[in-house]
Amino acid sequence: MIELGKSIDEIEIGEEASFTKTISESDVYLFAGITGDFNPLHVNDEYAQKTQFGERIAHGGITLSFVAPILGMQLPGVGTIALELSGKFLAPVKFGDTITVTAKVTAKDESKNRVSLSVIWANQEGTTVCIGETTVIPPVKEKSGYL
Amino acid sequence: MIELGKSIDEIEIGEEASFTKTISESDVYLFAGITGDFNPLHVNDEYAQKTQFGERIAHGGITLSFVAPILGMQLPGVGTIALELSGKFLAPVKFGDTITVTAKVTAKDESKNRVSLSVIWANQEGTTVCIGETTVIPPVKEKSGYL
Amino acid sequence: MIELGKSIDEIEIGEEASFTKTISESDVYLFAGITGDFNPLHVNDEYAQKTQFGERIAHGGITLSFVAPILGMQLPGVGTIALELSGKFLAPVKFGDTITVTAKVTAKDESKNRVSLSVIWANQEGTTVCIGETTVIPPVKEKSGYL
Amino acid sequence: MIELGKSIDEIEIGEEASFTKTISESDVYLFAGITGDFNPLHVNDEYAQKTQFGERIAHGGITLSFVAPILGMQLPGVGTIALELSGKFLAPVKFGDTITVTAKVTAKDESKNRVSLSVIWANQEGTTVCIGETTVIPPVKEKSGYL
Repeated sequence: MIELGKSIDEIEIGEEASFTKTISESDVYLFAGITGDFNPLHVNDEYAQKTQFGERIAHGGITLSFVAPILGMQLPGVGTIALELSGKFLAPVKFGDTITVTAKVTAKDESKNRVSLSVIWANQEGTTVCIGETTVIPPVKEKSGYL
Repeated sequence: MIELGKSIDEIEIGEEASFTKTISESDVYLFAGITGDFNPLHVNDEYAQKTQFGERIAHGGITLSFVAPILGMQLPGVGTIALELSGKFLAPVKFGDTITVTAKVTAKDESKNRVSLSVIWANQEGTTVCIGETTVIPPVKEKSGYL
Repeated sequence: MIELGKSIDEIEIGEEASFTKTISESDVYLFAGITGDFNPLHVNDEYAQKTQFGERIAHGGITLSFVAPILGMQLPGVGTIALELSGKFLAPVKFGDTITVTAKVTAKDESKNRVSLSVIWANQEGTTVCIGETTVIPPVKEKSGYL
Repeated sequence: MIELGKSIDEIEIGEEASFTKTISESDVYLFAGITGDFNPLHVNDEYAQKTQFGERIAHGGITLSFVAPILGMQLPGVGTIALELSGKFLAPVKFGDTITVTAKVTAKDESKNRVSLSVIWANQEGTTVCIGETTVIPPVKEKSGYL
């Protein structure tokens, strides 16, 4: 029996939650294996050294996906269904960077049971590496709040 | 020495490319490990059976990220930098589904060196599971076309 | 800034928390790769079929380790240091089994800042597959409760 | 056809075997993915730097599980079934530490077909990082010694 996350009436505008992880080389390599994105910028260090980045960088999709543990485990939490996700990539994420993603509730549509959140991803130096938005369906807890 | 992808003048409006992969349980489990998203909908089959989906489903971030091998390896190709990516999730992706993602050039801004593409993700039955957009900086090939 | 888990005075005797995950073949194979345990019972299906189990089973260490996300993320939570862990394996865990581990506080030693918990691991049919105990140092929150 | 390990009559009290591996960042990250333990002490380098450890450390469950290749592959070897495992964690294991685990037979109960072993885990500097015990059922070789 699993406790569901917050229903729309339990969510406050302005409420936020965050998740932090240091991105490892193995994260990038496994992600390449899952997605098939073997862009040399991610997996070819000789190539990457010649680019403007000077070293291999993480896939944008890893950064973007760090919002997922927030939505599905914290805010709104278990039972949430993601409808939309967007991100603008502002700065590269290097191997070993510690990324903190923070999602903040910006709007609720109770008639449609939709919650919108703005999302900011920052590195350990406080540089914003990505900004985005997401819209989700929070869990509906008809009876016990458990499923 | 790596051959760079297409520069903006080599890209045609309407041009498209695609990537197809069957999503495995191990893809989903590794993705949970990279992102920290242990939402029971992805990793708890008993829970998932009680939901509207009836079984564990893949993370939306996996689906979304399947556009990456197109952008960085085909169209425009090596040297591309992604600026924006967005997706609307329309249908669940189940373990074993074969997802084809197709990206199509919709606009070019030669003054800023930006290319926009619409993206459609469909499963093996032809059902559209996600639609989205992306904007990238295609590679600039000053001399040889190699880096 | 990370919020620390519960300090010893915030923990109640009898308090419990749980974690559930369906064990996949990829979990077992990656675990074999991490630990070097290529016991044919785990990775050789032809061999496993001839044993009393009739099929490959998961490593006991996977089952045992499912208590870790409870201790370090829920009860007591972030900042916890594990001192001791023990388990008795009572039944095999098969690929695809959904294991729920529940840890329950059994004792507190405030002078030494130690918390003991009993742990039960059960499968989707309610069969107890493992029982054990653990002792941890819960986080000390001197000032703000954040680190 | 697989050769079974030692039956109880082939095992000597005091007999020992060991296994050594350098723990990598990827081991820790994959283990987080298998177990769901994203305790920031393991995957958030900024947080870990503020703790008494000063850097990310490996999950205790990885250390503990390094005894598994001994039991199932060496002593007693193939066909062994683990019944109990316990460990006391004495010192942190850092990324890049080379851990040697040594298991030594301490008792045999031939009537129940049980073998007990003491286990010591040490790092490359000879520091004991964990001590523990395990009880196993060694293989029964009725006929050929093969399965």
